[in-house]
Amino acid sequence: MKKRRPKILLTNDDGISALGLAGLYEQIKEISDVTVVAPDSERSAVGHAITLSDPLRVWNFKKNGDFFGYAVNGTPADCVKIAYWALLDHKPDLLVSGINLGSNTGINVIYSGTVSAATEGTILRIPSFAISLTTYTDPDFTYAAKFAKKLAMEVWERGLPQGTFLNVNVPPVKEEEIQGVEITRQGRAIYKERFDKRIDPQKRVYYWLTGKKVELEEDGNVDDRAILNKKVSITPIHYDLTNYKYIHELRTWEITP
Amino acid sequence: MKKRRPKILLTNDDGISALGLAGLYEQIKEISDVTVVAPDSERSAVGHAITLSDPLRVWNFKKNGDFFGYAVNGTPADCVKIAYWALLDHKPDLLVSGINLGSNTGINVIYSGTVSAATEGTILRIPSFAISLTTYTDPDFTYAAKFAKKLAMEVWERGLPQGTFLNVNVPPVKEEEIQGVEITRQGRAIYKERFDKRIDPQKRVYYWLTGKKVELEEDGNVDDRAILNKKVSITPIHYDLTNYKYIHELRTWEITP
Repeated sequence: MKKRRPKILLTNDDGISALGLAGLYEQIKEISDVTVVAPDSERSAVGHAITLSDPLRVWNFKKNGDFFGYAVNGTPADCVKIAYWALLDHKPDLLVSGINLGSNTGINVIYSGTVSAATEGTILRIPSFAISLTTYTDPDFTYAAKFAKKLAMEVWERGLPQGTFLNVNVPPVKEEEIQGVEITRQGRAIYKERFDKRIDPQKRVYYWLTGKKVELEEDGNVDDRAILNKKVSITPIHYDLTNYKYIHELRTWEITP
Repeated sequence: MKKRRPKILLTNDDGISALGLAGLYEQIKEISDVTVVAPDSERSAVGHAITLSDPLRVWNFKKNGDFFGYAVNGTPADCVKIAYWALLDHKPDLLVSGINLGSNTGINVIYSGTVSAATEGTILRIPSFAISLTTYTDPDFTYAAKFAKKLAMEVWERGLPQGTFLNVNVPPVKEEEIQGVEITRQGRAIYKERFDKRIDPQKRVYYWLTGKKVELEEDGNVDDRAILNKKVSITPIHYDLTNYKYIHELRTWEITP
Protein backbone atom coordinates (compact mmCIF):
# COMPACT_ATOMS: atom_id res chain seq x y z
CA MET A 1 0.00 0.00 0.00
CA LYS A 2 1.42 3.39 -0.97
CA LYS A 3 1.30 5.87 1.88
CA ARG A 4 0.59 9.23 0.31
CA ARG A 5 -2.50 10.26 -1.61
CA PRO A 6 -1.96 10.42 -5.36
CA LYS A 7 -2.04 13.67 -7.29
CA ILE A 8 -4.60 13.16 -10.05
CA LEU A 9 -5.19 15.29 -13.14
CA LEU A 10 -8.71 15.21 -14.59
CA THR A 11 -9.73 16.26 -18.05
CA ASN A 12 -12.35 15.45 -20.68
CA ASP A 13 -13.61 16.40 -24.14
CA ASP A 14 -17.18 17.38 -23.27
CA GLY A 15 -15.96 20.59 -21.65
CA ILE A 16 -15.29 21.74 -18.10
CA SER A 17 -18.96 22.23 -17.25
CA ALA A 18 -19.97 18.68 -18.28
CA LEU A 19 -21.83 16.54 -15.75
CA GLY A 20 -19.59 13.53 -16.40
CA LEU A 21 -16.54 15.49 -15.28
CA ALA A 22 -18.37 16.80 -12.21
CA GLY A 23 -19.38 13.25 -11.24
CA LEU A 24 -15.81 12.04 -11.69
CA TYR A 25 -14.47 14.95 -9.62
CA GLU A 26 -16.78 14.14 -6.70
CA GLN A 27 -15.42 10.61 -6.46
CA ILE A 28 -11.76 11.21 -7.31
CA LYS A 29 -11.37 14.03 -4.77
CA GLU A 30 -12.07 11.52 -2.00
CA ILE A 31 -8.86 9.63 -2.71
CA SER A 32 -6.51 12.25 -4.15
CA ASP A 33 -5.30 15.78 -4.55
CA VAL A 34 -7.12 16.58 -7.75
CA THR A 35 -6.60 19.20 -10.45
CA VAL A 36 -9.03 19.76 -13.33
CA VAL A 37 -7.76 21.16 -16.63
CA ALA A 38 -10.40 20.82 -19.33
CA PRO A 39 -11.63 22.45 -22.54
CA ASP A 40 -13.81 25.54 -22.09
CA SER A 41 -16.41 24.03 -24.43
CA GLU A 42 -17.29 20.70 -26.01
CA ARG A 43 -14.51 19.22 -28.16
CA SER A 44 -15.88 15.85 -29.17
CA ALA A 45 -14.51 13.95 -32.15
CA VAL A 46 -11.46 16.20 -32.26
CA GLY A 47 -9.19 13.16 -32.42
CA HIS A 48 -5.68 13.81 -31.25
CA ALA A 49 -5.70 17.45 -32.33
CA ILE A 50 -3.37 20.05 -30.90
CA THR A 51 -3.60 23.81 -31.31
CA LEU A 52 -0.61 25.34 -33.07
CA SER A 53 -2.08 28.24 -35.05
CA ASP A 54 -3.89 30.01 -32.21
CA PRO A 55 -2.71 31.06 -28.76
CA LEU A 56 -4.06 29.14 -25.79
CA ARG A 57 -5.77 30.97 -22.94
CA VAL A 58 -6.63 29.68 -19.49
CA TRP A 59 -9.42 30.74 -17.12
CA ASN A 60 -10.25 29.75 -13.56
CA PHE A 61 -13.55 27.90 -13.42
CA LYS A 62 -15.68 27.39 -10.29
CA LYS A 63 -18.94 25.58 -9.77
CA ASN A 64 -21.08 24.41 -6.82
CA GLY A 65 -18.83 25.87 -4.16
CA ASP A 66 -16.02 23.32 -4.26
CA PHE A 67 -15.47 22.41 -7.92
CA PHE A 68 -12.43 24.30 -9.17
CA GLY A 69 -10.61 23.87 -12.44
CA TYR A 70 -8.75 25.50 -15.29
CA ALA A 71 -10.68 26.03 -18.52
CA VAL A 72 -8.60 26.10 -21.71
CA ASN A 73 -9.63 27.25 -25.20
CA GLY A 74 -8.11 24.13 -26.68
CA THR A 75 -8.46 20.41 -27.25
CA PRO A 76 -8.13 17.67 -24.60
CA ALA A 77 -4.54 17.04 -25.77
CA ASP A 78 -3.82 20.77 -25.38
CA CYS A 79 -5.21 20.64 -21.83
CA VAL A 80 -2.90 17.82 -20.81
CA LYS A 81 0.13 19.48 -22.38
CA ILE A 82 -0.51 22.89 -20.81
CA ALA A 83 -1.29 21.34 -17.43
CA TYR A 84 1.98 19.43 -17.49
CA TRP A 85 4.28 22.05 -18.99
CA ALA A 86 2.80 25.31 -17.69
CA LEU A 87 0.07 25.12 -15.03
CA LEU A 88 1.07 22.43 -12.54
CA ASP A 89 4.05 22.64 -10.20
CA HIS A 90 4.14 18.84 -9.92
CA LYS A 91 3.95 15.81 -12.22
CA PRO A 92 0.57 14.13 -11.78
CA ASP A 93 0.65 10.56 -10.48
CA LEU A 94 -2.37 9.69 -12.60
CA LEU A 95 -4.51 11.12 -15.35
CA VAL A 96 -8.20 10.31 -15.74
CA SER A 97 -10.11 11.54 -18.79
CA GLY A 98 -13.92 11.57 -18.75
CA ILE A 99 -16.48 10.58 -17.92
CA ASN A 100 -17.40 10.84 -21.57
CA LEU A 101 -21.03 11.06 -22.60
CA GLY A 102 -21.23 8.22 -25.15
CA SER A 103 -19.11 5.18 -25.88
CA ASN A 104 -15.51 5.22 -27.09
CA THR A 105 -15.24 1.73 -28.51
CA GLY A 106 -14.06 0.15 -31.77
CA ILE A 107 -12.81 2.55 -34.43
CA ASN A 108 -14.37 5.45 -32.49
CA VAL A 109 -11.30 5.24 -30.29
CA ILE A 110 -9.28 6.97 -33.00
CA TYR A 111 -11.71 9.91 -33.23
CA SER A 112 -12.08 10.38 -29.50
CA GLY A 113 -10.89 13.48 -27.70
CA THR A 114 -11.40 11.68 -24.38
CA VAL A 115 -9.01 8.94 -25.43
CA SER A 116 -6.53 11.44 -26.92
CA ALA A 117 -6.12 13.04 -23.48
CA ALA A 118 -5.14 9.65 -22.05
CA THR A 119 -2.75 9.15 -24.99
CA GLU A 120 -1.15 12.51 -24.25
CA GLY A 121 -0.80 11.64 -20.56
CA THR A 122 0.85 8.38 -21.55
CA ILE A 123 3.31 10.15 -23.85
CA LEU A 124 4.21 12.28 -20.82
CA ARG A 125 4.68 9.03 -18.86
CA ILE A 126 1.71 9.60 -16.56
CA PRO A 127 -0.31 6.41 -15.93
CA SER A 128 -3.63 7.24 -17.56
CA PHE A 129 -7.09 5.99 -18.35
CA ALA A 130 -10.07 7.23 -20.32
CA ILE A 131 -13.59 6.40 -19.12
CA SER A 132 -16.87 6.66 -21.01
CA LEU A 133 -20.52 5.97 -20.25
CA THR A 134 -22.01 4.21 -23.26
CA THR A 135 -25.21 6.19 -23.65
CA TYR A 136 -26.32 9.58 -24.88
CA THR A 137 -29.71 9.58 -23.18
CA ASP A 138 -30.49 10.10 -19.48
CA PRO A 139 -26.90 9.58 -18.35
CA ASP A 140 -26.36 8.57 -14.74
CA PHE A 141 -22.66 8.86 -14.04
CA THR A 142 -22.86 7.57 -10.45
CA TYR A 143 -21.62 4.02 -10.96
CA ALA A 144 -19.05 4.95 -13.64
CA ALA A 145 -17.57 7.55 -11.27
CA LYS A 146 -17.35 5.03 -8.43
CA PHE A 147 -15.68 2.54 -10.75
CA ALA A 148 -13.24 5.24 -11.87
CA LYS A 149 -12.26 5.85 -8.25
CA LYS A 150 -11.66 2.15 -7.67
CA LEU A 151 -9.66 1.75 -10.88
CA ALA A 152 -7.62 4.86 -10.11
CA MET A 153 -6.51 3.25 -6.85
CA GLU A 154 -5.66 0.00 -8.68
CA VAL A 155 -3.57 1.83 -11.28
CA TRP A 156 -1.91 3.94 -8.56
CA GLU A 157 -0.90 0.74 -6.74
CA ARG A 158 0.17 -1.31 -9.76
CA GLY A 159 1.25 1.20 -12.40
CA LEU A 160 0.99 0.64 -16.14
CA PRO A 161 3.67 -0.31 -18.67
CA GLN A 162 5.29 2.57 -20.52
CA GLY A 163 3.36 3.58 -23.62
CA THR A 164 0.13 1.84 -22.57
CA PHE A 165 -3.08 3.19 -21.03
CA LEU A 166 -6.57 1.86 -20.35
CA ASN A 167 -9.71 2.68 -22.28
CA VAL A 168 -12.72 2.01 -20.07
CA ASN A 169 -16.35 1.86 -21.19
CA VAL A 170 -19.19 1.46 -18.69
CA PRO A 171 -22.63 0.23 -19.70
CA PRO A 172 -25.55 2.51 -18.79
CA VAL A 173 -27.19 0.21 -16.25
CA LYS A 174 -27.59 0.30 -12.49
CA GLU A 175 -24.70 -0.97 -10.38
CA GLU A 176 -26.56 -4.12 -9.36
CA GLU A 177 -27.16 -5.02 -13.03
CA ILE A 178 -23.45 -4.91 -13.96
CA GLN A 179 -22.34 -8.40 -15.02
CA GLY A 180 -18.62 -8.05 -14.42
CA VAL A 181 -15.45 -6.54 -15.87
CA GLU A 182 -14.03 -7.73 -19.19
CA ILE A 183 -10.50 -7.07 -20.51
CA THR A 184 -11.19 -6.49 -24.18
CA ARG A 185 -9.68 -5.66 -27.55
CA GLN A 186 -10.66 -2.71 -29.72
CA GLY A 187 -13.52 -3.83 -31.98
CA ARG A 188 -13.22 -3.73 -35.76
CA ALA A 189 -16.84 -3.09 -36.69
CA ILE A 190 -17.05 -0.46 -39.41
CA TYR A 191 -19.57 2.30 -39.89
CA LYS A 192 -22.14 2.46 -42.59
CA GLU A 193 -22.10 6.20 -43.06
CA ARG A 194 -24.28 8.56 -44.93
CA PHE A 195 -24.15 12.25 -45.70
CA ASP A 196 -27.55 13.80 -45.34
CA LYS A 197 -27.64 16.34 -48.21
CA ARG A 198 -29.74 19.45 -47.53
CA ILE A 199 -30.41 22.85 -49.07
CA ASP A 200 -30.08 25.96 -46.90
CA PRO A 201 -32.40 29.04 -47.21
CA GLN A 202 -29.86 30.59 -49.61
CA LYS A 203 -30.28 27.53 -51.86
CA ARG A 204 -26.78 26.27 -51.11
CA VAL A 205 -26.02 22.57 -50.55
CA TYR A 206 -24.70 21.36 -47.20
CA TYR A 207 -24.11 17.90 -45.66
CA TRP A 208 -24.52 16.34 -42.23
CA LEU A 209 -22.55 13.22 -41.39
CA THR A 210 -24.61 10.38 -39.96
CA GLY A 211 -23.96 6.68 -39.59
CA LYS A 212 -24.21 3.51 -37.57
CA LYS A 213 -21.94 0.60 -36.77
CA VAL A 214 -22.40 -2.51 -38.87
CA GLU A 215 -20.78 -5.96 -38.80
CA LEU A 216 -20.51 -5.99 -34.99
CA GLU A 217 -18.26 -8.89 -33.98
CA GLU A 218 -19.60 -11.79 -31.90
CA ASP A 219 -16.41 -12.30 -29.88
CA GLY A 220 -17.06 -11.55 -26.21
CA ASN A 221 -13.56 -10.08 -25.92
CA VAL A 222 -14.53 -7.17 -28.14
CA ASP A 223 -15.22 -3.87 -26.38
CA ASP A 224 -18.70 -3.33 -27.86
CA ARG A 225 -19.74 -6.90 -27.13
CA ALA A 226 -18.76 -6.61 -23.46
CA ILE A 227 -20.96 -3.53 -23.18
CA LEU A 228 -23.89 -5.37 -24.75
CA ASN A 229 -23.30 -8.08 -22.13
CA LYS A 230 -23.60 -5.36 -19.41
CA LYS A 231 -19.94 -5.67 -18.48
CA VAL A 232 -17.42 -2.91 -17.91
CA SER A 233 -14.95 -3.03 -20.83
CA ILE A 234 -11.27 -2.27 -20.24
CA THR A 235 -9.02 -2.21 -23.32
CA PRO A 236 -5.25 -1.73 -23.01
CA ILE A 237 -4.24 0.78 -25.69
CA HIS A 238 -0.83 1.81 -26.98
CA TYR A 239 0.14 4.59 -29.35
CA ASP A 240 2.88 2.81 -31.27
CA LEU A 241 0.94 2.34 -34.50
CA THR A 242 3.59 0.28 -36.29
CA ASN A 243 2.32 -2.97 -37.76
CA TYR A 244 5.43 -4.95 -36.80
CA LYS A 245 4.18 -8.18 -38.34
CA TYR A 246 3.99 -6.54 -41.75
CA ILE A 247 7.49 -5.03 -41.72
CA HIS A 248 9.10 -8.26 -42.91
CA GLU A 249 6.62 -8.68 -45.77
CA LEU A 250 7.08 -5.09 -46.85
CA ARG A 251 10.86 -5.53 -47.00
CA THR A 252 10.38 -8.23 -49.62
CA TRP A 253 8.94 -5.59 -51.97
CA GLU A 254 12.51 -4.28 -52.41
CA ILE A 255 11.33 -0.78 -53.24
CA THR A 256 14.08 1.30 -54.81
CA PRO A 257 14.32 5.08 -54.56
CA MET B 1 0.30 -6.32 -64.57
CA LYS B 2 -3.20 -4.95 -64.07
CA LYS B 3 -4.69 -3.68 -67.29
CA ARG B 4 -6.78 -0.68 -66.36
CA ARG B 5 -5.55 2.59 -64.88
CA PRO B 6 -6.31 2.92 -61.17
CA LYS B 7 -8.77 5.48 -59.82
CA ILE B 8 -6.85 7.45 -57.21
CA LEU B 9 -8.21 9.80 -54.57
CA LEU B 10 -5.84 12.54 -53.40
CA THR B 11 -6.16 14.59 -50.23
CA ASN B 12 -3.97 16.39 -47.70
CA ASP B 13 -4.07 18.52 -44.58
CA ASP B 14 -2.27 21.61 -45.83
CA GLY B 15 -5.32 22.59 -47.89
CA ILE B 16 -6.34 22.27 -51.51
CA SER B 17 -4.12 25.13 -52.71
CA ALA B 18 -0.94 23.67 -51.16
CA LEU B 19 2.08 23.16 -53.41
CA GLY B 20 2.67 19.65 -52.10
CA LEU B 21 -0.74 18.54 -53.33
CA ALA B 22 -0.21 20.23 -56.70
CA GLY B 23 3.12 18.44 -57.12
CA LEU B 24 1.52 15.12 -56.21
CA TYR B 25 -1.35 15.74 -58.65
CA GLU B 26 1.03 16.40 -61.56
CA GLN B 27 2.68 13.00 -61.10
CA ILE B 28 -0.32 10.89 -60.11
CA LYS B 29 -2.46 12.06 -63.04
CA GLU B 30 0.05 10.45 -65.39
CA ILE B 31 -0.82 6.97 -64.15
CA SER B 32 -4.44 7.24 -63.00
CA ASP B 33 -7.86 8.79 -63.10
CA VAL B 34 -7.42 11.18 -60.24
CA THR B 35 -9.88 13.00 -57.98
CA VAL B 36 -8.84 15.61 -55.43
CA VAL B 37 -10.97 16.18 -52.32
CA ALA B 38 -9.12 18.32 -49.81
CA PRO B 39 -9.69 20.83 -47.01
CA ASP B 40 -10.41 24.41 -48.12
CA SER B 41 -7.70 25.68 -45.76
CA GLU B 42 -4.80 24.35 -43.72
CA ARG B 43 -5.79 21.72 -41.15
CA SER B 44 -2.48 20.64 -39.69
CA ALA B 45 -2.25 18.87 -36.34
CA VAL B 46 -5.97 18.16 -36.37
CA GLY B 47 -5.33 14.52 -35.53
CA HIS B 48 -8.12 12.22 -36.56
CA ALA B 49 -10.82 14.85 -36.10
CA ILE B 50 -14.20 14.65 -37.78
CA THR B 51 -16.80 17.39 -38.02
CA LEU B 52 -20.09 16.54 -36.34
CA SER B 53 -21.31 19.87 -34.98
CA ASP B 54 -21.16 21.89 -38.21
CA PRO B 55 -22.48 21.14 -41.66
CA LEU B 56 -19.96 20.36 -44.37
CA ARG B 57 -19.90 22.33 -47.61
CA VAL B 58 -18.14 21.53 -50.85
CA TRP B 59 -16.82 23.86 -53.56
CA ASN B 60 -15.28 23.23 -56.95
CA PHE B 61 -11.66 24.37 -57.02
CA LYS B 62 -9.62 25.05 -60.16
CA LYS B 63 -6.03 26.12 -60.61
CA ASN B 64 -3.50 26.38 -63.45
CA GLY B 65 -5.92 25.29 -66.13
CA ASP B 66 -5.99 21.56 -65.45
CA PHE B 67 -5.96 21.16 -61.65
CA PHE B 68 -9.50 20.42 -60.52
CA GLY B 69 -10.67 19.36 -57.08
CA TYR B 70 -13.35 19.58 -54.43
CA ALA B 71 -12.63 21.87 -51.48
CA VAL B 72 -14.36 20.94 -48.22
CA ASN B 73 -14.72 23.05 -45.06
CA GLY B 74 -13.62 20.09 -42.97
CA THR B 75 -10.73 17.96 -41.81
CA PRO B 76 -8.77 15.46 -43.92
CA ALA B 77 -10.85 12.62 -42.42
CA ASP B 78 -14.03 14.52 -43.36
CA CYS B 79 -12.71 14.85 -46.93
CA VAL B 80 -12.18 11.11 -47.30
CA LYS B 81 -15.57 10.30 -45.80
CA ILE B 82 -17.49 12.77 -47.96
CA ALA B 83 -15.59 11.72 -51.09
CA TYR B 84 -16.44 8.08 -50.47
CA TRP B 85 -20.02 8.42 -49.27
CA ALA B 86 -21.27 11.46 -51.20
CA LEU B 87 -19.08 12.88 -53.98
CA LEU B 88 -17.63 9.93 -55.91
CA ASP B 89 -19.65 7.52 -58.02
CA HIS B 90 -16.94 4.86 -57.65
CA LYS B 91 -14.79 3.37 -54.91
CA PRO B 92 -11.21 4.64 -55.31
CA ASP B 93 -8.57 1.97 -55.97
CA LEU B 94 -6.03 3.94 -53.97
CA LEU B 95 -5.82 6.92 -51.65
CA VAL B 96 -2.73 9.11 -51.41
CA SER B 97 -2.54 11.83 -48.76
CA GLY B 98 0.05 14.62 -49.06
CA ILE B 99 2.59 15.67 -49.91
CA ASN B 100 2.76 17.12 -46.44
CA LEU B 101 5.01 20.08 -45.72
CA GLY B 102 7.00 18.76 -42.75
CA SER B 103 7.73 15.31 -41.36
CA ASN B 104 5.14 12.93 -39.93
CA THR B 105 7.39 10.64 -37.93
CA GLY B 106 7.47 9.27 -34.39
CA ILE B 107 4.69 10.41 -32.09
CA ASN B 108 3.80 13.16 -34.57
CA VAL B 109 2.00 10.41 -36.49
CA ILE B 110 -0.83 10.55 -33.96
CA TYR B 111 -1.32 14.32 -34.40
CA SER B 112 -1.13 14.27 -38.18
CA GLY B 113 -4.06 15.18 -40.37
CA THR B 114 -2.17 13.80 -43.38
CA VAL B 115 -1.89 10.41 -41.72
CA SER B 116 -5.51 10.52 -40.49
CA ALA B 117 -6.70 10.72 -44.11
CA ALA B 118 -4.81 7.49 -44.87
CA THR B 119 -6.30 5.93 -41.73
CA GLU B 120 -9.77 6.89 -42.90
CA GLY B 121 -9.12 5.44 -46.36
CA THR B 122 -7.94 2.23 -44.72
CA ILE B 123 -11.08 2.01 -42.58
CA LEU B 124 -13.02 2.27 -45.84
CA ARG B 125 -10.82 -0.57 -47.19
CA ILE B 126 -9.06 1.59 -49.76
CA PRO B 127 -5.31 0.81 -50.00
CA SER B 128 -3.77 4.05 -48.77
CA PHE B 129 -0.54 5.86 -48.05
CA ALA B 130 0.46 9.19 -46.52
CA ILE B 131 3.55 10.97 -47.82
CA SER B 132 5.47 13.85 -46.24
CA LEU B 133 8.53 15.91 -47.14
CA THR B 134 10.60 16.33 -44.00
CA THR B 135 11.32 20.04 -44.17
CA TYR B 136 9.53 23.31 -43.60
CA THR B 137 11.98 25.49 -45.53
CA ASP B 138 12.40 25.79 -49.31
CA PRO B 139 10.41 22.64 -50.07
CA ASP B 140 11.06 20.97 -53.40
CA PHE B 141 8.34 18.35 -53.88
CA THR B 142 9.69 17.03 -57.21
CA TYR B 143 11.37 13.86 -56.02
CA ALA B 144 8.74 13.06 -53.36
CA ALA B 145 6.02 13.33 -56.01
CA LYS B 146 7.91 11.01 -58.36
CA PHE B 147 8.39 8.52 -55.55
CA ALA B 148 4.67 8.74 -54.71
CA LYS B 149 3.85 7.83 -58.32
CA LYS B 150 6.16 4.83 -58.22
CA LEU B 151 4.85 3.66 -54.85
CA ALA B 152 1.25 4.12 -55.99
CA MET B 153 1.91 1.69 -58.84
CA GLU B 154 3.54 -0.79 -56.44
CA VAL B 155 0.58 -0.64 -54.04
CA TRP B 156 -1.87 -0.89 -56.93
CA GLU B 157 -0.12 -4.06 -58.12
CA ARG B 158 0.41 -5.71 -54.74
CA GLY B 159 -2.33 -4.37 -52.47
CA LEU B 160 -2.03 -3.93 -48.72
CA PRO B 161 -3.35 -6.10 -45.88
CA GLN B 162 -6.68 -5.03 -44.40
CA GLY B 163 -6.32 -2.44 -41.67
CA THR B 164 -2.78 -1.44 -42.66
CA PHE B 165 -1.46 1.53 -44.63
CA LEU B 166 1.94 3.06 -45.35
CA ASN B 167 3.36 6.22 -43.81
CA VAL B 168 6.07 7.58 -46.08
CA ASN B 169 8.57 10.31 -45.22
CA VAL B 170 10.99 11.68 -47.82
CA PRO B 171 14.17 13.53 -46.86
CA PRO B 172 14.59 17.02 -48.35
CA VAL B 173 17.57 16.25 -50.57
CA LYS B 174 18.06 15.96 -54.31
CA GLU B 175 17.15 12.67 -55.97
CA GLU B 176 20.79 11.76 -56.57
CA GLU B 177 21.58 12.19 -52.88
CA ILE B 178 18.88 9.73 -51.70
CA GLN B 179 20.60 6.77 -49.99
CA GLY B 180 17.82 4.20 -50.36
CA VAL B 181 14.45 3.16 -48.98
CA GLU B 182 14.10 1.88 -45.41
CA ILE B 183 11.11 -0.01 -43.98
CA THR B 184 10.88 1.49 -40.51
CA ARG B 185 9.01 1.51 -37.23
CA GLN B 186 7.39 4.56 -35.66
CA GLY B 187 9.99 6.26 -33.45
CA ARG B 188 9.43 6.76 -29.74
CA ALA B 189 11.39 9.95 -29.20
CA ILE B 190 9.44 12.31 -26.98
CA TYR B 191 9.11 16.06 -27.13
CA LYS B 192 10.55 18.48 -24.68
CA GLU B 193 7.79 21.03 -24.87
CA ARG B 194 7.42 24.50 -23.57
CA PHE B 195 4.60 27.00 -23.44
CA ASP B 196 5.82 30.44 -24.28
CA LYS B 197 3.82 32.68 -21.89
CA ARG B 198 3.07 36.16 -23.22
CA ILE B 199 0.94 39.18 -22.33
CA ASP B 200 -1.39 40.66 -24.95
CA PRO B 201 -2.06 44.44 -25.35
CA GLN B 202 -5.10 44.03 -23.06
CA LYS B 203 -2.76 42.66 -20.36
CA ARG B 204 -4.17 39.15 -20.64
CA VAL B 205 -1.97 36.06 -20.53
CA TYR B 206 -1.76 33.71 -23.51
CA TYR B 207 0.46 30.74 -24.41
CA TRP B 208 2.15 29.42 -27.54
CA LEU B 209 3.12 25.77 -27.72
CA THR B 210 6.69 25.12 -28.80
CA GLY B 211 8.98 22.13 -28.47
CA LYS B 212 11.58 19.86 -29.95
CA LYS B 213 12.19 16.14 -30.07
CA VAL B 214 14.61 14.74 -27.54
CA GLU B 215 16.02 11.25 -26.91
CA LEU B 216 16.13 10.40 -30.62
CA GLU B 217 16.75 6.66 -30.98
CA GLU B 218 19.93 5.35 -32.62
CA ASP B 219 18.26 2.35 -34.29
CA GLY B 220 18.44 2.68 -38.08
CA ASN B 221 15.00 1.08 -38.36
CA VAL B 222 13.39 4.12 -36.73
CA ASP B 223 11.60 6.53 -39.07
CA ASP B 224 13.48 9.66 -37.96
CA ARG B 225 16.83 7.90 -38.16
CA ALA B 226 16.21 6.78 -41.75
CA ILE B 227 15.50 10.39 -42.69
CA LEU B 228 18.75 11.55 -41.06
CA ASN B 229 20.49 8.88 -43.15
CA LYS B 230 18.92 10.45 -46.27
CA LYS B 231 16.70 7.43 -46.88
CA VAL B 232 13.02 7.35 -47.73
CA SER B 233 11.21 5.97 -44.65
CA ILE B 234 8.17 3.71 -45.10
CA THR B 235 6.36 2.62 -41.91
CA PRO B 236 3.46 0.15 -42.03
CA ILE B 237 0.76 1.56 -39.73
CA HIS B 238 -2.42 -0.01 -38.38
CA TYR B 239 -5.27 1.53 -36.45
CA ASP B 240 -5.99 -1.35 -34.06
CA LEU B 241 -4.56 0.31 -30.95
CA THR B 242 -5.01 -2.71 -28.66
CA ASN B 243 -1.88 -3.69 -26.77
CA TYR B 244 -2.50 -7.44 -27.15
CA LYS B 245 0.58 -8.44 -25.18
CA TYR B 246 -0.73 -6.64 -22.12
CA ILE B 247 -4.22 -8.16 -22.15
CA HIS B 248 -3.06 -11.29 -20.30
CA GLU B 249 -1.26 -9.29 -17.61
CA LEU B 250 -4.27 -7.03 -17.11
CA ARG B 251 -6.54 -10.05 -16.62
CA THR B 252 -4.44 -11.07 -13.60
CA TRP B 253 -5.55 -7.87 -11.84
CA GLU B 254 -8.96 -9.50 -11.37
CA ILE B 255 -10.76 -6.18 -11.25
CA THR B 256 -14.28 -6.52 -9.84
CA PRO B 257 -17.16 -4.21 -10.71
